[in-house]
Amino acid sequence: MTIVEKLSALRETMRKEGVDGVFVPSSDPHMSEYLPDHWRSRAWLSGFTGSAGTLCVTTQKAALWTDGRYFIQAERELAGSGIVLMKMGQPKTPSVEQWLSDVLPENGTLALDGSCTNAAKVEMLQKACAEKKIAVRDQDFIESLWTEDRPAVPATKAWLVDREHAGASAAEKLKTLREKLAAKKANAMLVCRLDSVAWLLNLRADDIRYTPFALSYCLVKPEGVVLFIDESRVPEDVVRELQTQGVTLHPYDQVGAYLAAIGDALTLLYEPASTNWSLLRALQGNQAVKLVSEKDPIQLLKAVKNEAEMACQRKAHRKDGAAMVRFEMELRRRMESGEVWTELEASDYLLGLRMAQEGCLGASFETIAAYGANAAMMHYAPKQGSCAVIEPRGLLLVDSGGQYRHGTTDITRTFAVGPLTADERDAYTLVLKSHIAAARAVFKSGSSGKNIDILAREPMWRSGLDYRCGTGHGVGFVGLIHEGPQGLSSANDTPFVPGMTVTDEPGLYEEGKLGIRIENEMLCVPVCETEYGAFYGFEAFTYCPIDKRPLIVGELTDEELQWLNEYHAMVYRELSGLLTEEEALWLKDACAPVVR
Amino acid sequence: MTIVEKLSALRETMRKEGVDGVFVPSSDPHMSEYLPDHWRSRAWLSGFTGSAGTLCVTTQKAALWTDGRYFIQAERELAGSGIVLMKMGQPKTPSVEQWLSDVLPENGTLALDGSCTNAAKVEMLQKACAEKKIAVRDQDFIESLWTEDRPAVPATKAWLVDREHAGASAAEKLKTLREKLAAKKANAMLVCRLDSVAWLLNLRADDIRYTPFALSYCLVKPEGVVLFIDESRVPEDVVRELQTQGVTLHPYDQVGAYLAAIGDALTLLYEPASTNWSLLRALQGNQAVKLVSEKDPIQLLKAVKNEAEMACQRKAHRKDGAAMVRFEMELRRRMESGEVWTELEASDYLLGLRMAQEGCLGASFETIAAYGANAAMMHYAPKQGSCAVIEPRGLLLVDSGGQYRHGTTDITRTFAVGPLTADERDAYTLVLKSHIAAARAVFKSGSSGKNIDILAREPMWRSGLDYRCGTGHGVGFVGLIHEGPQGLSSANDTPFVPGMTVTDEPGLYEEGKLGIRIENEMLCVPVCETEYGAFYGFEAFTYCPIDKRPLIVGELTDEELQWLNEYHAMVYRELSGLLTEEEALWLKDACAPVVR
Repeated sequence: MTIVEKLSALRETMRKEGVDGVFVPSSDPHMSEYLPDHWRSRAWLSGFTGSAGTLCVTTQKAALWTDGRYFIQAERELAGSGIVLMKMGQPKTPSVEQWLSDVLPENGTLALDGSCTNAAKVEMLQKACAEKKIAVRDQDFIESLWTEDRPAVPATKAWLVDREHAGASAAEKLKTLREKLAAKKANAMLVCRLDSVAWLLNLRADDIRYTPFALSYCLVKPEGVVLFIDESRVPEDVVRELQTQGVTLHPYDQVGAYLAAIGDALTLLYEPASTNWSLLRALQGNQAVKLVSEKDPIQLLKAVKNEAEMACQRKAHRKDGAAMVRFEMELRRRMESGEVWTELEASDYLLGLRMAQEGCLGASFETIAAYGANAAMMHYAPKQGSCAVIEPRGLLLVDSGGQYRHGTTDITRTFAVGPLTADERDAYTLVLKSHIAAARAVFKSGSSGKNIDILAREPMWRSGLDYRCGTGHGVGFVGLIHEGPQGLSSANDTPFVPGMTVTDEPGLYEEGKLGIRIENEMLCVPVCETEYGAFYGFEAFTYCPIDKRPLIVGELTDEELQWLNEYHAMVYRELSGLLTEEEALWLKDACAPVVR
Repeated sequence: MTIVEKLSALRETMRKEGVDGVFVPSSDPHMSEYLPDHWRSRAWLSGFTGSAGTLCVTTQKAALWTDGRYFIQAERELAGSGIVLMKMGQPKTPSVEQWLSDVLPENGTLALDGSCTNAAKVEMLQKACAEKKIAVRDQDFIESLWTEDRPAVPATKAWLVDREHAGASAAEKLKTLREKLAAKKANAMLVCRLDSVAWLLNLRADDIRYTPFALSYCLVKPEGVVLFIDESRVPEDVVRELQTQGVTLHPYDQVGAYLAAIGDALTLLYEPASTNWSLLRALQGNQAVKLVSEKDPIQLLKAVKNEAEMACQRKAHRKDGAAMVRFEMELRRRMESGEVWTELEASDYLLGLRMAQEGCLGASFETIAAYGANAAMMHYAPKQGSCAVIEPRGLLLVDSGGQYRHGTTDITRTFAVGPLTADERDAYTLVLKSHIAAARAVFKSGSSGKNIDILAREPMWRSGLDYRCGTGHGVGFVGLIHEGPQGLSSANDTPFVPGMTVTDEPGLYEEGKLGIRIENEMLCVPVCETEYGAFYGFEAFTYCPIDKRPLIVGELTDEELQWLNEYHAMVYRELSGLLTEEEALWLKDACAPVVR
């Protein structure tokens, strides 16, 4: 079926069911960012394959909202579908709610799949629809349409991160969580976020591409915990270990029925933004349960890495750095010898180098290997048949990462693959200046992305340039590649505290011309404590040289040059032991100090 | 009466009236920051004379809350009074609400003067008191105590800023305001803030020291405006001009009765934070009035200066700069000749120089002339008999400003008055680096103090240093010295737009040792507009040399040195025409470029 045919079939069903509009978010029942293919309904229905987007279809119109990372890609993928692209963050773009309340008729009906739409979103939609008395109905319109080739719900083998590497057992984490619940006057919690379940029970699996989670819910009760997961996928020793920690198992698809039937009086904390509407309605219908609406307290606990997690992450970054060094050596060899290499071949080669590292489970997200103008698409991924050959001139952007048994990485380097234009050198130098500005930040406790983000942007803003995304995001531990609640963005007001991770990835993107990004992962660390308070900073813990060849050295300040040279000295120190003699020699040169 | 006697008398009355606690804010009926002496009850009762503070007295305890500007001064002034100092912004300090709900008894009574407490504050107090069922009563306990020497309510002669200098007539401003009201579905507004009344009607007087406002309220109706002011103080031509603009007069003290008796159906916008509780209760009791609770829309209109106001402000700054140049020449002469000069004499001399300028109405706030360690008190003001002699070594901080018939200024310079220590030079250089960082900021539209403030602090934070206040505040036009809603502070989220003013005044303060501050006023101006959006920056429009002698030139970057030299070239350009030949020669030297 083409997109036009799918939309036509959907509208046919809508007419039959008396529905005026359908809201299709990019979401699974756990509000995950990256979805199991089973739930990629929005992509299936619209043709837009980016990770973030919301589709709305009415009897006459169809529109898709996505953010600046995807404007170019979405325009291309939506062409000919009749779906209008709504560019989020631009002044004249209406919100989904505004648009729906505008185009839907008085007394109309909006349908959405309540099991894949979070309670907070439904409340917003209901508010927006209230004035025109539009009803919001919990009905799944995709199920009956997407019958052919729909991937199954995944159920991979579950495993546990051991206490030594996780730094705390499930029982220890539950103790901390129950204290947080008590502070909110709750004695129970429904954990819906997969990353929260994974952290709380040290549980992992391979249900979601790039993300080692098990589709499951967790009901924390005053005594004991119910983990909703199919027992058939949980090895016996894992079941036994979970039982030791106070966790019993219950089938995944019976969570709604279980919640509706809880008999003990519970004061249960739930997070509207991560709890799907269907489950919330099950809870609301249960008289024994008193609900407390709060943010998921696990998110903040999880974001602050303990010593064991930090040590594991550093180790993973060393492995990852060694793979990156080997990749760059091969890239240079090929460019010098003139051997043809496509973006996809380069991407596969890099994945092979990662997989050769002990404990690597795979990539932590779809590798972006983007040559020349392709890199202007922030989230471009090379596809078989359509990807570019890397020519021996200009720049190649590679944004990639690995999931390791004891760590998660995310790194971007932009490499010179031959002669560069003056514009490419200017842009590269500016991006590095922005990168260093964030990396060198020193800030008082209480400072958040909202305060700090400008440090990275200031060098670009002086030239009227910018990047249409945050400067960086948190990264999980054997977990999410985008982890909250902290983030280096002007919209984020979660204060950074030591132990939090964040990427530093400013970039410049010029459509049809170039894309440059330099990304390290950083760890928030204490700097000093004085009569004025505690001051924090960042420690870069991505270990990989930054290509010096595109740099205009004269544009760097003394402080910036010092940072670069100190960073490279550290990279050599951390990686050289993992490399062959030849590789270490190459690295020594790549990490040699830059002098004016 | 001593403070102890006053508190004892207050507690006596409290017992008689059956009241367990009294809340005494620093406020007049208009929620002004600087109060007519008549309403300085908190200072009268506590002995603490700073501009910001809240006093709470219970039968057993008394506590005063103030912010970091005043910690040292408050500790000194409260000594022996039995009043505990509550240092706001420090982690362990309870809020006023927390403290009251903690110390007051179950079913007790808290009294406050509703005419001097804003409605939003009362609501907060009521919320905090709800759990222990503590009643909040509108009763003035000061009136019966403060009978001797209580200053009268001021009623100075009112005057108008003409349309040419204000840039818009009252009728034009009312048209804009009514559009803003319509957008909030209101057709009337009660204007309580004196600065809002002053802006709206171009009305001024001399009721409040340093601030050229008339105590008055303004009721904007669908047709016409009622100005609550005593007609006896308004010259006939002003009355006529106001009538031409659609404004009629009504006695000031009858505002409550008038509001209670409005007969026409109005949808009236009021701002809880600037409307006193007594007036709100009058409105709430009137069935004809439907209330809309919103921020005062005049504040944002007023903050964006029009071309006429900007031209006037620049002119006032030139006059002010000429006075400052003359002051510094005299300061240097005295230090070189060894003539004794006290802080107060210096302060008076500077005021004399300002008053000699055409159109100067007086100082815009109490001059801070603080020598040596006195400058560690951010808001120190020299007093007769206790002020210091300026010795020929170290630093003198002078923070001062003028009210002009067509402008308002605020400037701080810190002068070397003799040999300096290495610490003084280090600190001075660091303060200038912070000052320049804010002055050079380029930021995207939508950026607020919350985003930008860190640029000024970053140089200090790198050394574990900080200042315990915002980086800067807006300044009014023939108006408030502290004008909102914008501000250079990590707590301020009002986006800067071209036409807004803000001071740039980072500092370093070390108790018992030194205080350094360098302050310019700046105007937000457009920088460029690109595909990424509109970018703004600041134009310094304080024209006065920055003392170069304490500077460690080697610590400045090329960009900082360039800013300083360009700033000084501008100062010379703007001021030299207003000076005598001798003064201009002196200025030329003071503004000569710094070279390494």
